[in-house]
Amino acid sequence: MITSPAAAIDLNADLGEGFGRWTLTDDEALLSVVTSANVACGFHAGDPSIMRRVCELAAARGVRIGAQVSYRDLAGFGRRAMDVPARELAAEVAYQIGALEVFARAAGSRVSYVKPHGALYNRTVHDAEQAGAVVAGVRLAAGEAGLPVLGLPGSLLLAAAAEAGLEAVPEAFADRAYTPAGTLVPRGTPGAVLHDPDAVVARAVRMAAQGEVTAADGSPVRVSARSLCLHGDTPGAAGLAVRVREALGAAGVRVEAFA
Amino acid sequence: MITSPAAAIDLNADLGEGFGRWTLTDDEALLSVVTSANVACGFHAGDPSIMRRVCELAAARGVRIGAQVSYRDLAGFGRRAMDVPARELAAEVAYQIGALEVFARAAGSRVSYVKPHGALYNRTVHDAEQAGAVVAGVRLAAGEAGLPVLGLPGSLLLAAAAEAGLEAVPEAFADRAYTPAGTLVPRGTPGAVLHDPDAVVARAVRMAAQGEVTAADGSPVRVSARSLCLHGDTPGAAGLAVRVREALGAAGVRVEAFA
Amino acid sequence: MITSPAAAIDLNADLGEGFGRWTLTDDEALLSVVTSANVACGFHAGDPSIMRRVCELAAARGVRIGAQVSYRDLAGFGRRAMDVPARELAAEVAYQIGALEVFARAAGSRVSYVKPHGALYNRTVHDAEQAGAVVAGVRLAAGEAGLPVLGLPGSLLLAAAAEAGLEAVPEAFADRAYTPAGTLVPRGTPGAVLHDPDAVVARAVRMAAQGEVTAADGSPVRVSARSLCLHGDTPGAAGLAVRVREALGAAGVRVEAFA
Amino acid sequence: MITSPAAAIDLNADLGEGFGRWTLTDDEALLSVVTSANVACGFHAGDPSIMRRVCELAAARGVRIGAQVSYRDLAGFGRRAMDVPARELAAEVAYQIGALEVFARAAGSRVSYVKPHGALYNRTVHDAEQAGAVVAGVRLAAGEAGLPVLGLPGSLLLAAAAEAGLEAVPEAFADRAYTPAGTLVPRGTPGAVLHDPDAVVARAVRMAAQGEVTAADGSPVRVSARSLCLHGDTPGAAGLAVRVREALGAAGVRVEAFA
Repeated sequence: MITSPAAAIDLNADLGEGFGRWTLTDDEALLSVVTSANVACGFHAGDPSIMRRVCELAAARGVRIGAQVSYRDLAGFGRRAMDVPARELAAEVAYQIGALEVFARAAGSRVSYVKPHGALYNRTVHDAEQAGAVVAGVRLAAGEAGLPVLGLPGSLLLAAAAEAGLEAVPEAFADRAYTPAGTLVPRGTPGAVLHDPDAVVARAVRMAAQGEVTAADGSPVRVSARSLCLHGDTPGAAGLAVRVREALGAAGVRVEAFA
Repeated sequence: MITSPAAAIDLNADLGEGFGRWTLTDDEALLSVVTSANVACGFHAGDPSIMRRVCELAAARGVRIGAQVSYRDLAGFGRRAMDVPARELAAEVAYQIGALEVFARAAGSRVSYVKPHGALYNRTVHDAEQAGAVVAGVRLAAGEAGLPVLGLPGSLLLAAAAEAGLEAVPEAFADRAYTPAGTLVPRGTPGAVLHDPDAVVARAVRMAAQGEVTAADGSPVRVSARSLCLHGDTPGAAGLAVRVREALGAAGVRVEAFA
Repeated sequence: MITSPAAAIDLNADLGEGFGRWTLTDDEALLSVVTSANVACGFHAGDPSIMRRVCELAAARGVRIGAQVSYRDLAGFGRRAMDVPARELAAEVAYQIGALEVFARAAGSRVSYVKPHGALYNRTVHDAEQAGAVVAGVRLAAGEAGLPVLGLPGSLLLAAAAEAGLEAVPEAFADRAYTPAGTLVPRGTPGAVLHDPDAVVARAVRMAAQGEVTAADGSPVRVSARSLCLHGDTPGAAGLAVRVREALGAAGVRVEAFA
Repeated sequence: MITSPAAAIDLNADLGEGFGRWTLTDDEALLSVVTSANVACGFHAGDPSIMRRVCELAAARGVRIGAQVSYRDLAGFGRRAMDVPARELAAEVAYQIGALEVFARAAGSRVSYVKPHGALYNRTVHDAEQAGAVVAGVRLAAGEAGLPVLGLPGSLLLAAAAEAGLEAVPEAFADRAYTPAGTLVPRGTPGAVLHDPDAVVARAVRMAAQGEVTAADGSPVRVSARSLCLHGDTPGAAGLAVRVREALGAAGVRVEAFA
């Protein structure tokens, strides 16, 4: 495999997605693998105690902390799109970032980026108003300095972030099928999610090292990503994440947080 | 009336105590009167949009912003004492402060103090564990610099704050009856709350100018307070607050935020 | 005015839309006017204590109790459309009906109909899946006997209710502008909501007595309604409701709950 | 072992204690063992979809459905005692029973008893006001017929239930240490919870067959129980529950719902 000498990739995963008595993500295991932790901020998951603990663990391992902001929907785990007016949504996003910042700073770190969760992630791919609201929320929370926004390549969210002068960081998914146009095959379509660990690992390496992946029709397609999203809420997720990281290392790809 | 030449007093009130469609406090009117705004942070009242607006209004009027932290209890408006373990409570307090800080800073101000709300205020008068947890939450959110804590004179909360190196700011209530020992007559006791506006105004002036008040048994009692708490959620509250402020001015008492 | 001798109309209003410390609707005043009370069931507003009290008041006045079901969205007062999967939505609707039934029965009455609130009302006008889910929720809660569903004429909700063998009860709005096709002029359009009390009263009478109203373009349009919806959450709402009821009486229209 | 010929015991466990994306209890496994299912009603755990599913599973297996009512505290899983005024608490209890009743009836069953959860269970052992409020809530929901209340022998809850004419059903815990007086050794005390499966099984059989157990000081103590509470939220819980049931059968104890 020919790898660009400077090839490097960030690995991100959703963490801290429990609430009160409930747990979901294997935070300790994943924090040994990823370089960026998308920490739930209490709106779809994550309570203050969990946020505090995940920030402490992440800071201790040198893993960067990001705010995984969501619709206010514990019952639906943030997976139900909501018609939240832009001004409300911006304030809700800022609220979540501010709450997380306290725990990041207390742990000696800080909130270094923002990534929307679930239905808000999907909605802001194509909804300009909500994409703008998320960006306005980031601005509200982070002021002039701003914060990078992590999202889907080609999404209106990343476009709005870039337009507002924020760093727009595209990510890729090693376990999702791509169309020849480089977009994700929608969940629900047969084959949309890959379950073969070997295939996922191979795709992760190819994405990171060569910037391409095989689309659903067999054609190669360019994937421009500075981060790979690993899933943490499925059985075997942590083990697969470890394999991906090892394979990246073996292929000469540095795993490090995006600049 | 003989007033100390340096007499000065802070006026604080609970603000932003609506939620979504519901409103409670007359925020605009009270922000024209008080020098310190206890802004609800979303746990007993206050949603992100309300918090943002109140912070903008407060900053525009030069009113200082404080975090009015509470148990997580929207249904009970934070008025139902809860046995929250200390570590959880500290994290919940920090979460609220961090969320408010975002809106205070976006408005060009900052969170300048912390005051517990409702049942948490009452509980931390005598519950050392929860008092310590609130102080730990302030430390968690505010770090080395810390933040002043506003509370009842003689409360374990203020003792814990002082012990932790935080500024402990005692407040008084012009509309509450006092015992000869200088503590509040418990709500529910006949005469515990004064409803005569003239009496409330006179007591406010005497407390601020002379540091004393007439106790329920008719004896004078010392009241050590750097702030007077005005209520904002009753009919006529804003009008009474205006009268108190005017009377203080007429008596030569400066109304200004505590240092 | 020529009134059909048998003309009768139901008057419905949203009630019990407070939560905890917050109040919104003037429940006592409106319960003296309406014949059907749409009682909030805790998802957008309404807590168990409020539900109990409103049911007691309604039963004492002989006002029929309906379940005003909503998305689970206290922060948005149920006004933000949500992509709730059908099966979840049906269960949420049933849950709300069941909870209200307890208080209705304890007061000597029962839940007699169902009306969706806010965004769920609007969504089920044109969203077949959610309309079907609401009907499925009614069936789940009410079993074979079923319950009438109150909604907008021409809505998919009423169509789904009728198809499922439930009674579909169309309602009209005296304070909303109508298109020549008999649909509501969307909120946000200039003139969509009428604010002149005289006009509202006149339209209510004409709708009830003659089954027609003047559309926004000046043409008369048929309005088929067995109930008129009165609003209870605006200043002067209760007073306007009284005027409407009196005018209906003066015009010879009987005001009574739909069969 | 000498077993009373008529010896019979009910087995109850907490079920449906997930929420949205989160799961906790192994509902299917436990429903193959227990005769009474304490179904969470949405206040500490349990959402409408989960409640519906658990009721369907329970009804299909002939397992009786009970309402596991709780303080409104998702974040604390109902484990934080709350000073809820009696009238509010009664309404909250009734609300939960009513919501569950819908799903029980839709599954062809009904709510057959009520058991408080967590902190409410513990609080009503000794708090007469809250014990009375829970009973009032049961009366509110169940009317004249009432419903049995499951609780700790000697608790004020069972006393209040009996006084109100409800059936008071005492339960025992095979995995908890008892004092010589027959009360539970408080959690937190060393040895308060037994972790040896063999010991738990043996105690269960002795409690059911002979109505006694060895107290922490080694003395035998009478345990009057018509139901044994099995825990479902710990690893191995379902397996242990199976062993208990099998051992009861082998000892000639009939396992059946209390009358």
